[in-house]
Amino acid sequence: MTESTTTDSSISSAPSTIDAAPSVAAVGDPSAPVVGSSGDAPQLSSGMPVHKYLPFHEQISVELPDRTWPTRRITRAPRWCAVDLRDGNQALIDPMNSERKLRMFELLVGMGYKEIEVGFPAASTTDFDFVRTLIEEDRIPSDVSIQVLTQAREHLIERTYEAISGAPRAVVHLYNSTSVVQRDVVFRADEDTVLDIAVQGALLCKKYEETTPDTQITYQYSPESYTGTELEYALRVCNAVIDVIKPTPDDRMIVNLPATVEMATPNVYADSIEWMHRHLDRRDSVVLSLHPHNDRGTGVAAAELGYLAGADRIEGCLFGNGERTGNVDLVTLGLNLFTQGIDPQIDFSDLDEVRRTVEHCNQMPVPERSPYGGDLVFTAFSGSHQDAINKGLERMETDAEKIGKGVDDMVWRVPYLPVDPKDLGRSYEAVIRVNSQSGKGGMAYLLRTEHGLELPRRLQIEFSGIVQQKTDSDGGEVSPEALWEAFTDEYLPTTDESKRWGRFAITSIHQESTGEGADRISVTLVVDGEEHTVIGIGNGPLDGFVKALAERKIDVRILDYAEHALTEGDDSLAASYIECEIGDRIFWGVGVDGSITRASLEAIISALNREQRAQR
Amino acid sequence: MTESTTTDSSISSAPSTIDAAPSVAAVGDPSAPVVGSSGDAPQLSSGMPVHKYLPFHEQISVELPDRTWPTRRITRAPRWCAVDLRDGNQALIDPMNSERKLRMFELLVGMGYKEIEVGFPAASTTDFDFVRTLIEEDRIPSDVSIQVLTQAREHLIERTYEAISGAPRAVVHLYNSTSVVQRDVVFRADEDTVLDIAVQGALLCKKYEETTPDTQITYQYSPESYTGTELEYALRVCNAVIDVIKPTPDDRMIVNLPATVEMATPNVYADSIEWMHRHLDRRDSVVLSLHPHNDRGTGVAAAELGYLAGADRIEGCLFGNGERTGNVDLVTLGLNLFTQGIDPQIDFSDLDEVRRTVEHCNQMPVPERSPYGGDLVFTAFSGSHQDAINKGLERMETDAEKIGKGVDDMVWRVPYLPVDPKDLGRSYEAVIRVNSQSGKGGMAYLLRTEHGLELPRRLQIEFSGIVQQKTDSDGGEVSPEALWEAFTDEYLPTTDESKRWGRFAITSIHQESTGEGADRISVTLVVDGEEHTVIGIGNGPLDGFVKALAERKIDVRILDYAEHALTEGDDSLAASYIECEIGDRIFWGVGVDGSITRASLEAIISALNREQRAQR
Repeated sequence: MTESTTTDSSISSAPSTIDAAPSVAAVGDPSAPVVGSSGDAPQLSSGMPVHKYLPFHEQISVELPDRTWPTRRITRAPRWCAVDLRDGNQALIDPMNSERKLRMFELLVGMGYKEIEVGFPAASTTDFDFVRTLIEEDRIPSDVSIQVLTQAREHLIERTYEAISGAPRAVVHLYNSTSVVQRDVVFRADEDTVLDIAVQGALLCKKYEETTPDTQITYQYSPESYTGTELEYALRVCNAVIDVIKPTPDDRMIVNLPATVEMATPNVYADSIEWMHRHLDRRDSVVLSLHPHNDRGTGVAAAELGYLAGADRIEGCLFGNGERTGNVDLVTLGLNLFTQGIDPQIDFSDLDEVRRTVEHCNQMPVPERSPYGGDLVFTAFSGSHQDAINKGLERMETDAEKIGKGVDDMVWRVPYLPVDPKDLGRSYEAVIRVNSQSGKGGMAYLLRTEHGLELPRRLQIEFSGIVQQKTDSDGGEVSPEALWEAFTDEYLPTTDESKRWGRFAITSIHQESTGEGADRISVTLVVDGEEHTVIGIGNGPLDGFVKALAERKIDVRILDYAEHALTEGDDSLAASYIECEIGDRIFWGVGVDGSITRASLEAIISALNREQRAQR
Repeated sequence: MTESTTTDSSISSAPSTIDAAPSVAAVGDPSAPVVGSSGDAPQLSSGMPVHKYLPFHEQISVELPDRTWPTRRITRAPRWCAVDLRDGNQALIDPMNSERKLRMFELLVGMGYKEIEVGFPAASTTDFDFVRTLIEEDRIPSDVSIQVLTQAREHLIERTYEAISGAPRAVVHLYNSTSVVQRDVVFRADEDTVLDIAVQGALLCKKYEETTPDTQITYQYSPESYTGTELEYALRVCNAVIDVIKPTPDDRMIVNLPATVEMATPNVYADSIEWMHRHLDRRDSVVLSLHPHNDRGTGVAAAELGYLAGADRIEGCLFGNGERTGNVDLVTLGLNLFTQGIDPQIDFSDLDEVRRTVEHCNQMPVPERSPYGGDLVFTAFSGSHQDAINKGLERMETDAEKIGKGVDDMVWRVPYLPVDPKDLGRSYEAVIRVNSQSGKGGMAYLLRTEHGLELPRRLQIEFSGIVQQKTDSDGGEVSPEALWEAFTDEYLPTTDESKRWGRFAITSIHQESTGEGADRISVTLVVDGEEHTVIGIGNGPLDGFVKALAERKIDVRILDYAEHALTEGDDSLAASYIECEIGDRIFWGVGVDGSITRASLEAIISALNREQRAQR
């Protein structure tokens, strides 16, 4: 496409209907210069059934030629609402029990979220009980609002107010589905009938509000499946609800426009938000809220561009949990602000702990490449990247020295690292290639194929740092033999007494199951050459051993645990890998033994010995 | 923010410098209506060190008030380039060996990619050898171009041409880093010196081109770290290289503008691409290419908006593998086109197989919520979602019947499912809540806590469908006891002879290791009541058993495998879960036994018996 082709497409002449859209330039237009001339590789039809799908603009018309959002900039955090306990929890194969719900709630409060959707109490006894627990046990800080979801049906609304009774403040979140498809297929109702569902719901909310006089209520309305709803109709429904609630600048209501299913590129969502922003009644009394999902992988972009387009508030989940592809990721949104020098108003300074809690509550791993929080996002593999990063770090130090400042007072500028991992409580690791000549480049590969060990990802990264140090001091490539020696010396006790190190060693283990999840374990340890026996009771041998150690003032917290059979067959050995927090540092330990129990305890001892050595 | 605030910010008066930007409206401007009035929950400062970070616009100026891309629409697939074997492979802890490289190459070719970056041959012997293998074994189809990366240094360029010698066609991809920070910190050189690196590199390419007269060369130039480079300077460098290569409309060159690190919202990247698109020399002889990374979680959006802005070509990796947060995800980009009725020109019709191959080659899992390909993206948990989906599916069938069409000739419109999973070779699963009253809602939770079984995610989904069928026929909630009965009846052989079913059962197993990865296994099976002994040799008991079955015309392909100890302690049982392809269908099997070997073989038998029953 040449420059002259582009300038044909003028913003100001964009049409307001979609059927005849002559001045909307089409990317990939066949009239554009032919792709496939010399040197080009011509792509072929995939044969997939494209005839089944309509482009978004043939379903819903969004036209805003005088949009202003692409010229705007973000300078301040939006109002956040975390929906992990509702939209997130709903999407788990293994939904949170009350212990996990409470941990999630406390995590969100601790990070600084002030609006937390805690459930759909009228639809679920679990949710109802959880809301009651929060209120009756006085667990909601005075500056935090709980938010509860309800459909627009009288018995559900009544029950919702029962749930929040006694809370100092709450957001009552009313929704009904408004999309073309849902009106047609699910409700089999016309526009006015579906609008009336919303209006009647709002009226019922006002009615039952009288049953909770001590609770300060904020209303939120969502036209669910907003992205599949005609804009003019979505506006009509929202304005009708606004007309019932009658918000004022001093007592605003929230209008939430969910991308229940993400249906178009994020600029189209932004256009639709700016259009709503311009047309909503009583705009100064409305908090315009976004609720993006991630079906097209652009939920974060939709949130950011929608915020530029006039929204005030964003709903999402930590690490993007939620139905199907998830809700928009609050961690990425918050830290995207941080790296632009904008206070997210949320504390991400111990992101590993946030990740661990979320993984525990959701019983799902955070992906390795998840922005900011994934295991691999602060690793560098390429030599040229590592070199540039080192030079960047060095320069920051010398520059700081020159002007007599601390390095943490300098503007961060290090190639390939968009944020200082230390600001998130994380660290940068250079992962080295052990033996790139052989095509078996990774340590992980060598340990797996030659020794049957399947190291968890974070242990791979930790060990890589250890090999890196060795390479820096010894120089050159690391042979498979040297790698194995480095691994065993670091993690496994040697049988060679002359090379043996480590303050602790296990002599014998006795365990007995006393029933109902309480195991008694007794372990005889050699500590600095002397035998001691420690005894603990826990819901398993690991838990018991940790408790036994705690009584001896050895504090170990188990962060992650993995084990596998070393070889297939009946006479197999088990390998156990345990990530331990000892003091404020993190150490992996490894144990290999015929008994799974002993392998696990050896892994804890391995971590303890490493921690002792690291102190020296 | 009210409408009048917004219209203050006129696009046409946007300034070209950033220091005094009065008419760029700031989102979250303190002069906007105060957030924090009644009903609002005031957020507090996070205390994080925001002073260390500069907003992007204070680093690099991108101003394009007359941008046209937000008004444009995509109608055709871009030219794709898959960089899994180079940028993707570089970012693996466990880089691909030659077997995995070849599988990835063949996967990409089979899907329809016509440009495949296969390595950095001058920097790595493995890459060099792999390129030579592709050429010498004649593995490159005639319509596919391999692409090789090189830095702008003479000995590397020379070696690059050695690598591609004999290939019918190749893209030589020259790069050097041009960003402000890299010039300052890494090269310690001024603008002209860094520009000269690129020009000298291009001249050397032209010189060594003469050593491979039989190869049709296309040139590609990347100003690496483009997003951190001043636009005017990036343009100057690209135009200088264009001036050396002298492309023509019949012999175009590729100019690739990488978001090596994603540094701003994706609309800013799009603005910068449209600016370059307007200003590049010989635009009709240049293929403008994008290479987005995902540091801010908006790589897909950057690619889509950049394509709208005038680009012709996109580089990325399957499922977004790549340094740190990854390269842009080619699966998401391709299927985002498909769901708009645009042929991606790439075949995604067996996405599970694509996922499995990628997981094998990268030795990394595809996340559960990865768009289109993740395990959870076609599941529905909420009752109202399941109800709407069912109504949508039914309506499509009745509508098709009415007009005498097949349902696959109808336009897809089903709530909550943006694409028909069948078009990707996948299926939709309604995951039910077993016992939501107790707060222990998930089957996974019950099986784990009450029976010690940790089902892999896809088995959880499969079993959920089985429970769903039972619920539909029996009605009502499922008790933990009924759930366990359903599980054992489906997956585990019962000891109760009256309830026993299944065509196959294992009597005895003998295995011997004949050294060097070749195990001989002999298994006595009861088949339809008669004993048979099968014998196979493989690199382990599973492999041997599968081969032994294949000799009896029982074809089983193992797709996934997981095992764990059922209980901690010395006398533990092992649970084994195996995902099998039998015929063209997929079945999970489960085995529990004191011996890991036997548990695994029992799991295969479990899958085989289930397949037999499903045929009836």
